[in-house]
Amino acid sequence: MAASLPRKGLFDIPDGVIYLDGNSLGPLPKGAAERALNVIGEEWGGELIRAWNTADWMTLPKRVGDRIAGLIGAPEDSVATGDTLSIKVYQALAAALEMRPDRKVILSDSGNFPTDLYMAQGLIRTIGKDHELRTPAPEDVASAICEDVAVVMLTHVDYRSGRMHDMGHITRLAHEAGAVMIWDLAHSAGAVPVEIAACRAEFAVGCTYKYLNGGPGAPAFIYARPDIVERIEPALAGWLGHAAPFAMEPDYRPAMSTERLRVGTPPIIQLSVLDAALDAWDGVAMVDVRAASIGLCDTFISEVELRCPQLTLASPRDSGLRGSQVSFAFEHGYAAMQALIDRGVIGDFRAPDIMRFGFTPLYIGDDDVRTAAAIIAEVIGGELWRDEKYQVVSAVT
Amino acid sequence: MAASLPRKGLFDIPDGVIYLDGNSLGPLPKGAAERALNVIGEEWGGELIRAWNTADWMTLPKRVGDRIAGLIGAPEDSVATGDTLSIKVYQALAAALEMRPDRKVILSDSGNFPTDLYMAQGLIRTIGKDHELRTPAPEDVASAICEDVAVVMLTHVDYRSGRMHDMGHITRLAHEAGAVMIWDLAHSAGAVPVEIAACRAEFAVGCTYKYLNGGPGAPAFIYARPDIVERIEPALAGWLGHAAPFAMEPDYRPAMSTERLRVGTPPIIQLSVLDAALDAWDGVAMVDVRAASIGLCDTFISEVELRCPQLTLASPRDSGLRGSQVSFAFEHGYAAMQALIDRGVIGDFRAPDIMRFGFTPLYIGDDDVRTAAAIIAEVIGGELWRDEKYQVVSAVT
Repeated sequence: MAASLPRKGLFDIPDGVIYLDGNSLGPLPKGAAERALNVIGEEWGGELIRAWNTADWMTLPKRVGDRIAGLIGAPEDSVATGDTLSIKVYQALAAALEMRPDRKVILSDSGNFPTDLYMAQGLIRTIGKDHELRTPAPEDVASAICEDVAVVMLTHVDYRSGRMHDMGHITRLAHEAGAVMIWDLAHSAGAVPVEIAACRAEFAVGCTYKYLNGGPGAPAFIYARPDIVERIEPALAGWLGHAAPFAMEPDYRPAMSTERLRVGTPPIIQLSVLDAALDAWDGVAMVDVRAASIGLCDTFISEVELRCPQLTLASPRDSGLRGSQVSFAFEHGYAAMQALIDRGVIGDFRAPDIMRFGFTPLYIGDDDVRTAAAIIAEVIGGELWRDEKYQVVSAVT
Repeated sequence: MAASLPRKGLFDIPDGVIYLDGNSLGPLPKGAAERALNVIGEEWGGELIRAWNTADWMTLPKRVGDRIAGLIGAPEDSVATGDTLSIKVYQALAAALEMRPDRKVILSDSGNFPTDLYMAQGLIRTIGKDHELRTPAPEDVASAICEDVAVVMLTHVDYRSGRMHDMGHITRLAHEAGAVMIWDLAHSAGAVPVEIAACRAEFAVGCTYKYLNGGPGAPAFIYARPDIVERIEPALAGWLGHAAPFAMEPDYRPAMSTERLRVGTPPIIQLSVLDAALDAWDGVAMVDVRAASIGLCDTFISEVELRCPQLTLASPRDSGLRGSQVSFAFEHGYAAMQALIDRGVIGDFRAPDIMRFGFTPLYIGDDDVRTAAAIIAEVIGGELWRDEKYQVVSAVT
C-alpha cells in the first residue's frame, strides 16, 4: 500500500523551520537517535567485539546496500555501501578505465560536482598516463560522446541548477560509442525515480546524507552492473572486499559480486543510523515522490516569480528536465539566504549567486512551500538582506 | 598531573567481563553515548545544515587529528582523520611512490596486516607499471632494505604476534637507502609510546577503534611529515582536501598542510564519538601506559605458562620487542577462545592457531590479568573447549 505524503511525523524538524535543504543534509529521522543508542549502548557496549557476529555488523553494509538498491532500480547484491562518494567515484572510474585500456578520455561536464572532477584528476595523475578529462557544458555532453571516450561520468542532477540529464539517452549514446557509463546519483537517490539496471549503465555512485537522510557524513554507495562486476579488479583492494577476509591470505582475491567494492572496516554507527533513516521509505513509491516533488517545485517557482522579480530562475522550467530542487540566481544571494535562514526558511547558497531550495516530499508539503515563498517575498521585497549581520561569510555556505 | 591507571570508571564494560580484546575493538567509553545523542539530536536535529558552522563540524576532523597527534608524538596540523585505514594506506603509498619515481619496490613484510598488502597490490595494478611488492619475513626486513626500494611500509606492532619493529632503526635504514618510510600504527596508537616526528618517517597511518576506543568503524588517521606535506599531490583528490572546497573550482588545488589528505565529507557522528572517546586519554602519559602494559603482559605470560603447558607463547618474551598484546599458539585455539569468551574472558583468535589477548591499562588491572589466567587454566587444563558448542565457526573470529 502506498504511503501518503508528506510523512512529517517521521522526522524531528525544529518548530518554526521550513527545511528546504534536504538536498544538502536531510533532517533527523525519528528513529535515528534510538538506533544510535542501541548500536552504541547495547551492541558495542554490551557485546563488544562479539557484535560483529551477534549484531550482524559484518553484513550491515550489504543489508543497507540492498535497501538503497530498491530506491534506484537495482537488484539485490548490486550495491555496496561505505566510504565517501569521492572514494566511490575513484573506484568506479578506475574500474571503468581498465575496461577500456585503449581509450584515454574521461568525459564529464562542467556542471559536475567538483569532487567528481577532482577525483578524476587525481586518478589520472596517479596512473601517470596520457589520459584526459573533458568537461564540456552539460548541454554539449551528448554531442561530445565519441569513440575516443573511455568513460562518460556524469552527475544525473546538477547540484547547482537541478538540471537533469536524460539517463537513458546519454547511457545509450555512451554505449553506442563503446564507452563505459558512470552515473553519480547524489541528487537523485530518493529525489527522482532512477532505473539504473534498466538503463544498463555499468556503474552508479551516490551519497546518503541528502535525500536519504542518513546523517552528516553518512556512508556512500556504489552500484556495479551484475554482469560485469566479477570482471572488476578493484583499485582499492581492501581486506573487506577480499573473498575471505579472515583467512588473512597474503594476496588479494576479490569477493564475489559487489562485495568486492567494499574496502575497509565499515562505519557501523553511521551505517546503523542510515539503516534507521531508510525506514522512512518503507511503503513509499518513488513515482509518488516524484509527482509530489514536481507539484512542490512548480508551485514554488510560480509563487516566487510572482512576488520576486529580482530573482532569476536558474533551474529548468520544464519539470521533466529538473530534479527535486529549484535554484534562483540573485546577486545578493548569500546575504538573502542568511536572512531567510534567520526567518526559518533554510535553503543554501552556492557561489557565485545561486540560492538553492530542495523539495523533499517526505516532509515538505504545499503549505510549507507557500509559507516559504511568502517569507522570501518579504526578505527580497523589503531588502531585509541588507542588514549587516547577513554579510558575514561562514566557512560552509 | 599524571592520571593513575587503570581508569575503569571511564568505560562501560559489562559485569563479569574481562575484556582482553581492546586491540581489536576498544570498549565503550562512558561519554560516547551522550556525545552521540548530542551530535544527532542537538546538532543534526536542531541545527540541521547550519551545524557545519554552528557546531563546527568542518574543523572536527582536524581537531580530532590534533588530539591523536598528541598520542603519537606528532605536532599540531600534521594528522588528518577520516576514511578507513585501508584508504589512508593507499594515500600514503601513492604519495610515497611519487616521491621516488625512479624506484619500483615497495618493501613490507609477511607479517603485515593483509589489507596493507592488498592496498599495495591494488595500487600497483592501478598505476600499471612494473612495481613490485616484496614481503620478506619480519626479521629479514632490515637486511632487505636496499637502493631499489622506493618505500618501506611496515606495521609497527604485528597484529598476530605483537612483535614490534624498531621504528627508529628501520626508519634510519630506509632513509640511508634513500627510501620513504610509512608506519602503520594500528596496534601502536594508544598502545605504546610513538615518537613519529622524532623518527623522521614521512608517513604514518592508523585506526582508532582499537586502543583509542573510537567505536566500530571509527575513522582512520594519516600523518605526513610537515616538511614534505606540501609537496604531496594527493592521489585521492577529494573536495575537502581542496584549498577552497566551497569555491567549487573546476580544478583540484590541494589545501595547505595535512588538510590535503582529507578526501570526502567526514563521518561526523563517528568522529564525534571518537572525540568523546579520546577524553579518556586526558592527563595520561604514554610512558605510564607502557610501564603498566609491560607489567600486565609479563604477569599474564608467567601466569599462563605456569598453568598451561599446552599453550606456546607466540609473542616475543622480551617486552622491549613486544607491543601491548600477548599471543599464544594452541592447536585448538578457536574452540578454546570460544570457551573463554563464554566464561567472560574476551580475547580473539587469528588463523591458523593464535589466541590473542590485548592489554589496555586504561581499563585492565593486575587483578583482571590474574583472574583471566586462572580461567584460561580451567579451560585448557579441563579441556572445556572440547564442548561441541565451541566448534561452530562464526563469520568473524
